Amino acid sequence: MDKINHVIASIKPLDERAMEEARKRQDRLTKPKGSLGQLESVSIRVAGIKGEPRPRIVHKVIFTLAGDHGITKEGVSAYPSEVTPQMVYNFLRGGAGINVLARHVGARVVVADLGVASVLERHPALKDKKVAKGTKNMAKGPAMSREEAIRSIEAGIELVEEELANGIDILGTGDMGIGNTTPSSAIAAAFTCADVATVTGRGTGLDDEGWRQKVNVIKKVLEINRPDPKDPIDVLSKGGGFEIGGIAGVILAGAKYRIPIVIDGFISGAAALIATSLSSQVKPYLIASHRSAEQGHKIILEYLGLKPLLDLDLRLGEGTGAALGIFLVEASLRILDEMATFAEAGVSEKI
Amino acid sequence: MDKINHVIASIKPLDERAMEEARKRQDRLTKPKGSLGQLESVSIRVAGIKGEPRPRIVHKVIFTLAGDHGITKEGVSAYPSEVTPQMVYNFLRGGAGINVLARHVGARVVVADLGVASVLERHPALKDKKVAKGTKNMAKGPAMSREEAIRSIEAGIELVEEELANGIDILGTGDMGIGNTTPSSAIAAAFTCADVATVTGRGTGLDDEGWRQKVNVIKKVLEINRPDPKDPIDVLSKGGGFEIGGIAGVILAGAKYRIPIVIDGFISGAAALIATSLSSQVKPYLIASHRSAEQGHKIILEYLGLKPLLDLDLRLGEGTGAALGIFLVEASLRILDEMATFAEAGVSEKI
Repeated sequence: MDKINHVIASIKPLDERAMEEARKRQDRLTKPKGSLGQLESVSIRVAGIKGEPRPRIVHKVIFTLAGDHGITKEGVSAYPSEVTPQMVYNFLRGGAGINVLARHVGARVVVADLGVASVLERHPALKDKKVAKGTKNMAKGPAMSREEAIRSIEAGIELVEEELANGIDILGTGDMGIGNTTPSSAIAAAFTCADVATVTGRGTGLDDEGWRQKVNVIKKVLEINRPDPKDPIDVLSKGGGFEIGGIAGVILAGAKYRIPIVIDGFISGAAALIATSLSSQVKPYLIASHRSAEQGHKIILEYLGLKPLLDLDLRLGEGTGAALGIFLVEASLRILDEMATFAEAGVSEKI
Repeated sequence: MDKINHVIASIKPLDERAMEEARKRQDRLTKPKGSLGQLESVSIRVAGIKGEPRPRIVHKVIFTLAGDHGITKEGVSAYPSEVTPQMVYNFLRGGAGINVLARHVGARVVVADLGVASVLERHPALKDKKVAKGTKNMAKGPAMSREEAIRSIEAGIELVEEELANGIDILGTGDMGIGNTTPSSAIAAAFTCADVATVTGRGTGLDDEGWRQKVNVIKKVLEINRPDPKDPIDVLSKGGGFEIGGIAGVILAGAKYRIPIVIDGFISGAAALIATSLSSQVKPYLIASHRSAEQGHKIILEYLGLKPLLDLDLRLGEGTGAALGIFLVEASLRILDEMATFAEAGVSEKI
């Protein structure tokens, strides 16, 4: 826990002066004040995150973390667990959705094994941060030990720190783990106190009966484990997943190193609940890329007070929404940096 | 009108076979069916537009059309008319919002004078399609003659046809014209029969009194001119603008040449009302990039049955929303083309 506490202690508020300078510049650019809406507000926030009035983005990194879930034994997913390692190999070969969108936005993808159930073949592009071979069945007890929960968060912090040397001007979060909407719903229910049914969606494609079964399983998980929302490590260990803990660690490290953190959908949202519960200072560093079709995501975003940039009914995960979000953040910063001012362009101002 | 009728007659329905092939391929890609939401549906529609099951995008073009408006004499805009030519020069120097976002998405910007009130200096990158030196004050009679309305649409068609040799795989529409939310509101009210106040926004930044004045002016425009919604040329001539007619022409030509048409915000939406009223075959070729903060845009999009890709409170125009929309369409096509299938990646399918 020392490593986590150290990171938390080093997270600072946003740089108000850089934000003020960015705000003033936005108002001098050749457009009606505020006419670029969220592109303006995001650019100002990123200026505060990076402590620079005109920040530039070169290195874009998406962290896609994988883990397996013992809860799949309860029949909560439309796909078998073997898909988790298969998709990791797909990431490493560049054939998955996140690879395509990362190429499209010019981002690197860092793929990490936080807790895939099987032993993965070594690959130069695969980061081995395996905490354990999948979580336990949390319908029968905690998903992981408290030590494992801490370890998963630390592993996420390490991933960011190991990548710093290659450059990270902005980061996106992503996940892969068959069954991981179930722990995410459990985490969302634990923190927001929302009814389980309202934070439970169809994941990769459950039918009505499968969905009802999933709701019942999550209710059982919460009853048996009684996660304490005042103790985020407790919530993660009782109702979480290794990749979720890892993403929480990526988020904490992002905030420490003043990197804008573009969070993906529902699973990343659950990780953001853990991270912001560990430190309320994290929140202004978060940029919500999109609102997922997974229904609980709306509740998480409202709880976190985040307005998503996109609403395209995405529900793939992997960081696909984050990749598109990174592109929009970059657009907002290029507007801030590259547009001519009224004075430079000789354009008349408001009557 | 011959040229317009010729274009209209050559607009064909989407290619159902290409759409079916694209749909089948989307379902074979390594992701749960439908999990990329609007990115999937857009890619399928573009396959139908282009008549290719896996269309690729190389040449991206944004048409930004400028015109002035006699109605500004009624005090309907927060900025003076001189800003229209000043912004055209800003476009030509690359300092405007549209230039920045077009660079970001790798698109060319075609800047055209459809009816700026002043004489613009010649510039190699400026297309001269001036119909007249600004519209007349439509609070006192038609904005333009029927012939001028036809000419403005034809000019838009010419812009696309002249650009075909340079390659256009996708196009975006954009506008510049101080005062042009007023004719756009008049057009929206004429076609949708919505109350004037509900389709009238604050444009570049009117205060409450300015907004009330604008609503009254638009009511007067409609009372005096009585545009006939069954005759789109009549609506354009009585309550339109030259750049609005030009954009309608760009849209018609886009549909003729089977180019996906990414429409910008409120002004482009008004032009889309003209174009779709001239030919109902146009509608499936339209992709709404965003929902503008200008309140009437929502009503136009609902009337056209279009779901926007973005909702970022943009209200700048110029094609800025269209540029971002083009990027998302391209993302959708790369997903369709580049992702591995379940069979290729050796990933198990749904249980």
